[in-house]
Amino acid sequence: MNTQQMLRTHPDVRGHESEQLIRCIDECHACAQVCTSCADACVAERSVERLRQCIRLDLDCADLCLTTAALASRRTGSNEEVLRLTLEVCALACRRCAEECDKHASMHEHCRICAEACRSCQRACEEAVTDVGGGQQAH
Amino acid sequence: MNTQQMLRTHPDVRGHESEQLIRCIDECHACAQVCTSCADACVAERSVERLRQCIRLDLDCADLCLTTAALASRRTGSNEEVLRLTLEVCALACRRCAEECDKHASMHEHCRICAEACRSCQRACEEAVTDVGGGQQAH
Amino acid sequence: MNTQQMLRTHPDVRGHESEQLIRCIDECHACAQVCTSCADACVAERSVERLRQCIRLDLDCADLCLTTAALASRRTGSNEEVLRLTLEVCALACRRCAEECDKHASMHEHCRICAEACRSCQRACEEAVTDVGGGQQAH
Amino acid sequence: MNTQQMLRTHPDVRGHESEQLIRCIDECHACAQVCTSCADACVAERSVERLRQCIRLDLDCADLCLTTAALASRRTGSNEEVLRLTLEVCALACRRCAEECDKHASMHEHCRICAEACRSCQRACEEAVTDVGGGQQAH
Repeated sequence: MNTQQMLRTHPDVRGHESEQLIRCIDECHACAQVCTSCADACVAERSVERLRQCIRLDLDCADLCLTTAALASRRTGSNEEVLRLTLEVCALACRRCAEECDKHASMHEHCRICAEACRSCQRACEEAVTDVGGGQQAH
Repeated sequence: MNTQQMLRTHPDVRGHESEQLIRCIDECHACAQVCTSCADACVAERSVERLRQCIRLDLDCADLCLTTAALASRRTGSNEEVLRLTLEVCALACRRCAEECDKHASMHEHCRICAEACRSCQRACEEAVTDVGGGQQAH
Repeated sequence: MNTQQMLRTHPDVRGHESEQLIRCIDECHACAQVCTSCADACVAERSVERLRQCIRLDLDCADLCLTTAALASRRTGSNEEVLRLTLEVCALACRRCAEECDKHASMHEHCRICAEACRSCQRACEEAVTDVGGGQQAH
Repeated sequence: MNTQQMLRTHPDVRGHESEQLIRCIDECHACAQVCTSCADACVAERSVERLRQCIRLDLDCADLCLTTAALASRRTGSNEEVLRLTLEVCALACRRCAEECDKHASMHEHCRICAEACRSCQRACEEAVTDVGGGQQAH
């Protein structure tokens, strides 16, 4: 991903890009892909009846990750309080999804990988929150 | 929109659909369309330089509205704490977008309509929050 | 939805808005909601094992409908060949989803409603295609 | 990204994953991020009036890339004709966006990087098309 290069060349960011935000954007894209794949693989499993909650949390997590990546990518003007709260709810969605996937990790490799990706994305969102101002202009 | 009919026929919902959640889903779709249109119209305006913040908030609001609509539409299993926080951040994004659009409403009719749609969606999200359990199963 | 009002007040559209495109945007939002709900309801059904293909087509259709609505809402500049092809693939996704939902319509009311919404959206996309220029500027 | 691992562990894919499709999914996520960033950076530029068409094509391309990544990630059941056409329209959207970004590449580094990412994603979509069956079941 070229995320770092893109934020670096943004007219309002130059020289003030946040390493945490950049990593968070990349983790959100990676996690959205994994959650979309995991939901789809769960639907195909013979034990799909035991994976209903997993499918639900995967799909919710994928949606939130993509929205978080988009909001975190925008550096024109300021919407920092919204971004901060979005990062927080994304971190929670990742945590909930990881907890559910953990239950199926020994049976389904896609759930094991998904739990890992979700925890990694959760951490990245939590670290990015600390780097985003709340309520007032960040720049 | 067939939102009410769809939630009514969901195997886990039958007879317990939330009027507030249904209205919120429809408002989120309507608001996402208006914000996408408003951002695009702002880009086309001669005074685009004064509309940068408006474009930013429009795009953030559109993304959050679509994700909120998707999460609120899912009634299988439970992800109520995530849904509740998503409704709250969506309401805030709508409020911020309405405040910014208000500043341009006398000049640009699309901003006037967008401010109205955002406030309507904000209220719908706030009312839906009160109807969603937090942390534990809602049904 | 305020779609008509929004397109009417766009600086590049005034007086040249397309009724077909407006209806298509609204149908795409309605269809995306129905498909998201139908996929989620299918996951909750006891007969989920027979609904795998339905879930897949629902999710694909929902994604394409939202992207089509966003592209059709943008009237700044020109991307008409891309818009035309997107409307065509969206119409096909709606047709495939309707065909699959038809198979389950007698068992599941959500599939019956979804098949109807998909056919309605398919027609709206097909009619909008005829109103969009291909390859050259439309305005 | 864990895309390869995820597709490998899908119950309907095991041993038949497509290298082309995997690369295409990753390129679509990378391109969506870059296009979202480029649109946002263009809005912030002093010369925003000359970047209207660039912003439009960036946003259209980002939407199509994310939808293409989601569709290509789903391997349950079959929707191959829709996937094939989606890959084709995504490749075209990438080409159009690259052509426009090229015009501003000497002035704006984000446009130069975006043009490159779009061409890379275009090629990945075109190569993936050849690996997707059209009209009939792929598995």
